[in-house]
Amino acid sequence: MDKEITIYDIAKDLGVSPTTVSRALNDHPAVNEKTKKKIYKAAMDMGYQSNVFASNLRSKKTNNIGVIVPRLNSSFQSSVIAGMEKVANEAGYNLIISQSMESEAKEIANTLTMFNSRVDGLIVSLASNSDNLAHFKPFIKKNIPLIFYDRVGSLEEILGVTIDNLNAAYQATKHLIDQGCKRIVHVLGNIKVNVYSERLKGYKYALLDHEIPYDDKLIIHADLNEEAGYDIVQKVKNLDKPIDGLFVSNDACAASCIRQLKLEGFKVPQDIAVVGFNNDVISRLVEPNITTINYPGYEMGEIAMKNLINHLDDKSESMLKTTNKITLRSELIIRESSKRKLV
Amino acid sequence: MDKEITIYDIAKDLGVSPTTVSRALNDHPAVNEKTKKKIYKAAMDMGYQSNVFASNLRSKKTNNIGVIVPRLNSSFQSSVIAGMEKVANEAGYNLIISQSMESEAKEIANTLTMFNSRVDGLIVSLASNSDNLAHFKPFIKKNIPLIFYDRVGSLEEILGVTIDNLNAAYQATKHLIDQGCKRIVHVLGNIKVNVYSERLKGYKYALLDHEIPYDDKLIIHADLNEEAGYDIVQKVKNLDKPIDGLFVSNDACAASCIRQLKLEGFKVPQDIAVVGFNNDVISRLVEPNITTINYPGYEMGEIAMKNLINHLDDKSESMLKTTNKITLRSELIIRESSKRKLV
Repeated sequence: MDKEITIYDIAKDLGVSPTTVSRALNDHPAVNEKTKKKIYKAAMDMGYQSNVFASNLRSKKTNNIGVIVPRLNSSFQSSVIAGMEKVANEAGYNLIISQSMESEAKEIANTLTMFNSRVDGLIVSLASNSDNLAHFKPFIKKNIPLIFYDRVGSLEEILGVTIDNLNAAYQATKHLIDQGCKRIVHVLGNIKVNVYSERLKGYKYALLDHEIPYDDKLIIHADLNEEAGYDIVQKVKNLDKPIDGLFVSNDACAASCIRQLKLEGFKVPQDIAVVGFNNDVISRLVEPNITTINYPGYEMGEIAMKNLINHLDDKSESMLKTTNKITLRSELIIRESSKRKLV
Repeated sequence: MDKEITIYDIAKDLGVSPTTVSRALNDHPAVNEKTKKKIYKAAMDMGYQSNVFASNLRSKKTNNIGVIVPRLNSSFQSSVIAGMEKVANEAGYNLIISQSMESEAKEIANTLTMFNSRVDGLIVSLASNSDNLAHFKPFIKKNIPLIFYDRVGSLEEILGVTIDNLNAAYQATKHLIDQGCKRIVHVLGNIKVNVYSERLKGYKYALLDHEIPYDDKLIIHADLNEEAGYDIVQKVKNLDKPIDGLFVSNDACAASCIRQLKLEGFKVPQDIAVVGFNNDVISRLVEPNITTINYPGYEMGEIAMKNLINHLDDKSESMLKTTNKITLRSELIIRESSKRKLV
């Protein structure tokens, strides 16, 4: 690297004192606006970098916030991150991002890296096999604020930002029942994850409340991706009795199931009514359009980040000490894939 | 924050000298493996953080790499970022991410923030109205490595990682011509962006080579999103003569056009054959499946990051000084949306 530009270089260039330059760059009231502007411009032109290392060493703040997600390559997670970045950037914080690739071991390594990078705070959506959570203890011990979102852990002292997954799944299942479905398959991910265990509860409660017996042969665990449709539809076809409803825990997978169902000669929604989850773009573009749960990822990112930054900027006003859970609104959006009753 | 754990605390706890702790944590050969392990474990348990500020001050390295994207909330960009994160993480670097929201002003502000945060390197996909590029000069001046990808600028000294957009568009257009199309509409974004200007050239050259006259009424500029289909199809219907081919510069927008065409009674591909771009998940799930250009976003992220890190780790082996362009393979994937000729 080239020689570092210092305040002495700027001072020399402009014929002012180094103290004036230093004061101007720190927006000191003793320097008039005209001089400040001149000094800012010279600093920019000469390529002056504020000495963050030295100033971090004094303030013990990095202005970096760590985010660990299961996978960056996901429509939901990229919405969340976009919302987080907007809030962080406006407040003068940088986002440091890493992905656990759904592996607890990688999540532990990422968490340690974030800890040693001295992020000012950490926001995490857990890997699907992460259940020990001991790796977050150093953050708690050092009072570095930590927030979980979507896939929240069981640490009582940590704020979790979620939707009401139980109720959302209840509404989705009830809607299928209202459309005349009696044998409804529920497709979901790893039951260790709160998101899926809560949705399974919602599905069961809706059946119970409508006097439809629960049958665990109708529960299909799958990787919820665009390739899963084939396997799911084969499993559905191998059931002893035909089904008439399918509630899938994300839209890409629901779209894949619909495609496969159509290829196999099923009519959607007449033979099998389908409901997805997330309200991804894909739910509005496939045919038939997919009934789904609107899951506000962007807003979830904004809210998690706002709470973290509020805490960093003013601990007295912070909700982190007192609040265990923030639940965002979600709602059922009814489209063609499940509409079997004509009005 | 609580009291900082120091090597003196660890030394006291274990009854060894602070020098031994310091040497162990720096993997010094004078400390035996057993003692090292004991010291690592105590450091973890007690919540010791390596003093990155002081060590950064010495090494002048942050181990942070900045990435600026137009929008995080995009299927293509989230693939790219996933690829970058994987490579950076394995090499011990963190990713600091911000989005320009397609605004040059925000890109300038983000670039300055990255500069003052002293990122070790910067990777950028430009905002659509970014054409001055003066904001990157401080990086060049200080020899901080900079790489552009996808939307690359006109700075001769900066490596750009792209696909061959001209050839990809040529192949897409030629394919439509091969299917018997004679009036092909091309839908694209802001022509200031290299990506779109190159594709327009490819479209024109393919027409020229097949003796189809170019007609600029057949060029539609649009925001390439899932809502754009309605407006595009209205424009198509208002043309003086009917069209028989549609080449859209991304898949979400192509899917939206197909949906709208079908709603208006057009048959795809019989009346209008459609080709998209990117090979997003959506291209494989809508009906008919969309013929598209496979655009390897994940690999693009990996390659951009690998080149940056190679440069940081060993400047002598670096391609950054000598290489102006890295072009990734892309290819046409033919699916139902454009197949009009039976074999």
